[in-house]
Amino acid sequence: MSLPRLKLISFPLCPYVQRSRITLLEKNIEHEVEYIRPDALPDWFFDISPLEKVPVLLVDEQPLFESMVICEYLDEITPGSLHPEDPFERAINRAWIEFGNEILDKTFTLFKTEDEKSHKHAKSIILDRFDILEENLQHSPYFNGESFSLVDAAYAPMFRFYEVTKDLLHFDVYEDTPKIRAWADALLARPSVIQCVHADFMDNLKGFLTRPDSFFGRSLKTD
Amino acid sequence: MSLPRLKLISFPLCPYVQRSRITLLEKNIEHEVEYIRPDALPDWFFDISPLEKVPVLLVDEQPLFESMVICEYLDEITPGSLHPEDPFERAINRAWIEFGNEILDKTFTLFKTEDEKSHKHAKSIILDRFDILEENLQHSPYFNGESFSLVDAAYAPMFRFYEVTKDLLHFDVYEDTPKIRAWADALLARPSVIQCVHADFMDNLKGFLTRPDSFFGRSLKTD
Repeated sequence: MSLPRLKLISFPLCPYVQRSRITLLEKNIEHEVEYIRPDALPDWFFDISPLEKVPVLLVDEQPLFESMVICEYLDEITPGSLHPEDPFERAINRAWIEFGNEILDKTFTLFKTEDEKSHKHAKSIILDRFDILEENLQHSPYFNGESFSLVDAAYAPMFRFYEVTKDLLHFDVYEDTPKIRAWADALLARPSVIQCVHADFMDNLKGFLTRPDSFFGRSLKTD
Repeated sequence: MSLPRLKLISFPLCPYVQRSRITLLEKNIEHEVEYIRPDALPDWFFDISPLEKVPVLLVDEQPLFESMVICEYLDEITPGSLHPEDPFERAINRAWIEFGNEILDKTFTLFKTEDEKSHKHAKSIILDRFDILEENLQHSPYFNGESFSLVDAAYAPMFRFYEVTKDLLHFDVYEDTPKIRAWADALLARPSVIQCVHADFMDNLKGFLTRPDSFFGRSLKTD
């Protein structure tokens, strides 16, 4: 198997990058990772990332953007597949990946936003989406049962946010969703999910999420 | 070739539904379309669409949601492909589909939002994204050249908004992007793009977009 040279461009704390890194690790694909800082972007980055977002995967120097597009590409160029074989099941997996994109986005808002209104709005959407997801989870320990899939790679970074902040949040996000809680626990114990970030990542993320310029960070200060 | 029974659930004016309908027509797939009204949703719809969104494709009665997921599924279960054969080219196409999702979303905001601030914010994002897209268009008449692809199906409904409103908007969205203008013209002349909506669709959409409860609609009244 001759693969192109692959380099993943990342921010240290970006959850979307983790999806691609998990896929690289799950499929045991040789690759490099280059971390850049979002507050000190190198000039070359503007040429390869149209929206200045990560991840970008350099494929023999050619840039590819969008986390799940990168995951599908990595899956397609290597033997086996992290998607179900049946086209309808594969489509259902992709639909729930799309569903998860909004939850990850709102989770980021929950911790990052400066104002209380959008924090509360994000919380209400997350809990609503969790209820729907809970009703639709049919297998365990992973989304499709015993086999780890791209849909698991898509959700794992979101579960990491709640793991890092579980003793800080004013609510238990999994209170009414035991199936999601079990799914999160299974994913956070998976080697690829553990290894896709640095050993000091959890502490760094906690520091970032509890900064006083976010509503969430300020809410901790006054407790 | 034995396909499942396919029924597409649609709102009359929804742009996302058009992507799936274009794919059905391009691949000459037997299907039904059922239109429902967003202000009078039937009870059964809540059971099949977790976010009360369309399109939903019923596949032998099993629901599948998300427009591009539906397009990929339809492409995969029928001969030939509307994606490039090369995995990297296919990934690049998918990346630009994701890029287009935000433009379509902001285009909808441009016409639907009640307040001037978000109208102007949407406009600035659209023009910025158009500049980036223009720089990255490498072929004509379609995204990949002579072959019509899923990425074309993804963008066509957005171009329809600007066709319907071209004499009403206070700016020419294509002013600095002649390649996008040519792409839009080619797509809007394509039979599948024309036939994916009702004959009276353009008039209905114009009526909807110019309603006085939107900033855009009110801006027309006072001209």
